[in-house]
Amino acid sequence: MAKPNAFYAQSGGVTAVINASACGVIETARQNRDRIGKVYAGRNGILGALTEELIDTGRESARAIRGLRSTPSGAFGSCRYKLRSLEENKREYRRLIDVFAAHDIRYFFYNGGGDSQDTANKVSQLGETLGFPITCIGIPKTVDNDLPLTDCCPGFGSVAKYVAVSTREAALDVASMCETSTKVFILEVMGRHAGWIAAAAGLAQEKRGDAPHIIILPEVPFHKGRFLAKVKRTVRERGYCVIVVSEGAQYKNGRFVADAGTKDAFGHTQLGGVAPTIAAMIKERFGYKYHWAVADYLQRAARHVASATDVEQAYALGKAAVEFALTGKNAVMPTIVRTNDKPYRWKIGEAKLERVANVERKMPKSYISSDGFGITAAARRYLAPLIEGEDYPAYKNGLPRYVRFENKLVAKKLKAFRV
Amino acid sequence: MAKPNAFYAQSGGVTAVINASACGVIETARQNRDRIGKVYAGRNGILGALTEELIDTGRESARAIRGLRSTPSGAFGSCRYKLRSLEENKREYRRLIDVFAAHDIRYFFYNGGGDSQDTANKVSQLGETLGFPITCIGIPKTVDNDLPLTDCCPGFGSVAKYVAVSTREAALDVASMCETSTKVFILEVMGRHAGWIAAAAGLAQEKRGDAPHIIILPEVPFHKGRFLAKVKRTVRERGYCVIVVSEGAQYKNGRFVADAGTKDAFGHTQLGGVAPTIAAMIKERFGYKYHWAVADYLQRAARHVASATDVEQAYALGKAAVEFALTGKNAVMPTIVRTNDKPYRWKIGEAKLERVANVERKMPKSYISSDGFGITAAARRYLAPLIEGEDYPAYKNGLPRYVRFENKLVAKKLKAFRV
Repeated sequence: MAKPNAFYAQSGGVTAVINASACGVIETARQNRDRIGKVYAGRNGILGALTEELIDTGRESARAIRGLRSTPSGAFGSCRYKLRSLEENKREYRRLIDVFAAHDIRYFFYNGGGDSQDTANKVSQLGETLGFPITCIGIPKTVDNDLPLTDCCPGFGSVAKYVAVSTREAALDVASMCETSTKVFILEVMGRHAGWIAAAAGLAQEKRGDAPHIIILPEVPFHKGRFLAKVKRTVRERGYCVIVVSEGAQYKNGRFVADAGTKDAFGHTQLGGVAPTIAAMIKERFGYKYHWAVADYLQRAARHVASATDVEQAYALGKAAVEFALTGKNAVMPTIVRTNDKPYRWKIGEAKLERVANVERKMPKSYISSDGFGITAAARRYLAPLIEGEDYPAYKNGLPRYVRFENKLVAKKLKAFRV
Repeated sequence: MAKPNAFYAQSGGVTAVINASACGVIETARQNRDRIGKVYAGRNGILGALTEELIDTGRESARAIRGLRSTPSGAFGSCRYKLRSLEENKREYRRLIDVFAAHDIRYFFYNGGGDSQDTANKVSQLGETLGFPITCIGIPKTVDNDLPLTDCCPGFGSVAKYVAVSTREAALDVASMCETSTKVFILEVMGRHAGWIAAAAGLAQEKRGDAPHIIILPEVPFHKGRFLAKVKRTVRERGYCVIVVSEGAQYKNGRFVADAGTKDAFGHTQLGGVAPTIAAMIKERFGYKYHWAVADYLQRAARHVASATDVEQAYALGKAAVEFALTGKNAVMPTIVRTNDKPYRWKIGEAKLERVANVERKMPKSYISSDGFGITAAARRYLAPLIEGEDYPAYKNGLPRYVRFENKLVAKKLKAFRV
């Protein structure tokens, strides 16, 4: 009898290290050729399973697969697609079974955030409810660091490092020019509901009074008066003010700060960022010269300045997922368990998918300073190890050498399916 | 008789490598202690000379000065301040002479862009017109790469590398998500009058059809219809479209594209960037999901991904400036002369300050592709060597270890002066 095959897919927003998890999965499966046949990657995540668009990762050399470890983005394509419940949409689940059966797939590895772990959990129920046994393991991933039951999420450490490094660098720039030029600099970072990424900018501080002087978190209702007072005080005392703001910053009533009620020339609501919005507030009140930056995808794709800790954990979680599957576990996700802060020690743990799915972890109150504009020593203790270590990609002609696969699809065996 | 002292100052927008030039100046002066006494740095550029705010760089250890080589921003403070002509403002020139005389300063090194070389040139005239002999050497610096008579400007190569790396990384991100998510990504970069920085993003391309698909340069009048047609074609053919746009992109009539006539809630003109403006254009016409980033200061401060070529040249120009002064040259600026493209070879040349001052070098037409949205092979040949090589700073606790000086001022000998 042929060995069962595995299906691996990437889901949701990609990161600098999700391919490192893919590398962990594929390399570990290759080390277990006696028990796992092919590793098929879904083209564009779970969509690839529904549309029977499968990529045979076996066509790629060991060297190319190794290259995944230092390549950002999703090498096989990712997607934003959430499976509805079995009751609501049995048709899609039946299709998954058809595809898995047609290609002898008995292992399902799904690499993503909260929504994706929900999908993975639903797929794991195929065995019980539809009589198709499949081993289903989730692999955590999200720059937002908002999954429960794991100490941190792969992808976050590298964004955190990017944001801390960029804040330190830009702050030096502003400090050296503030006498005659820009006095306020604002960096907008990701984080719609949780402020982990903005909080990580606080690591840029070496001593009291260092930038960033103000961090705006979604967890703390934005109060314009208190914010502007702090900007003024900082400029008076330090000569300049560096602000890092979460895209999800919001007022007490839940309205996003970015939604400033501005209209474009056609009368449509201006889809601006929160950075230009608060820059305008500051200009309006004080007239300070300002600059702002919006890092957007640059932050989550910045493999060139990835955290070595993050890369290592992403790989280890991919590896653990395969090992879990081979020891007969099902409907679980490997996690990071912190065993010591300093020196930092961690090990792989395990969480049930049903407990991970759709739970969002925000910053604890104890991580936020009393005025709401900074982070505490406890937050530093938590965050600092996650950005530790550099893991530079190889360069060629002055640019990182990232792998790009052809991703040819294996021959389809089934009729087309409309998603 | 005591040896004469030197004055060094940083001017205009700072860069990732202007401190490497400072390092070259100070280290070379220290190697010539028999001929140069102290090196005073001006606090906040030429302002430090006018206000007699001088920093004795001799207080810093050899190790700290070496650290300048890998620290971005201006370690002694920079300024935006342009000296008027001698005829218009003799008072300031007399003040410079007073300060230089009081502190035995006979060498003047000024590290900056076009305006700054104009200032340096004016200071060099002090000898002839006001009878105070001073040796005056300019040191080029500008991320805009727009100085004439030098093959390139220190600071540019590192921004170019940052922009090319970031474009390659963000493009991989977009490519992996475009099936179900963002189809258009726009990165706004610096370059008010010259498109060198945006052009450098073109280096991210490995093969035909790679991102960036569209580069918008200030040198090419922006034509909305042609632009939108190219966006549509690219999304149709590639599935996504990556655009890099100069902040200075403008219409045929000279109006900035960023000036979209938008108003904020108070009725003031919205000071938005060009990236959100063209994002809105695309949304309006096609409804594509988009994302945009504005790199702003992050790009010019990004020492963590500096070009080794750029760092080396910045240092060499600082060193050459001191050597020029010691061989009796005056009113000149060391330059970079390219002697070969591949393998890249360069040497130090020399230009008269009067020929450098206030001349702006734009991208030659031969570097711009026929449709105006890309770069040519000639541009690649020019740009590629400038981003070559990595020169990573040392890290501590996951962050670059940048030097920061106390910058205590030497005792003043003169009465206060109102600038």
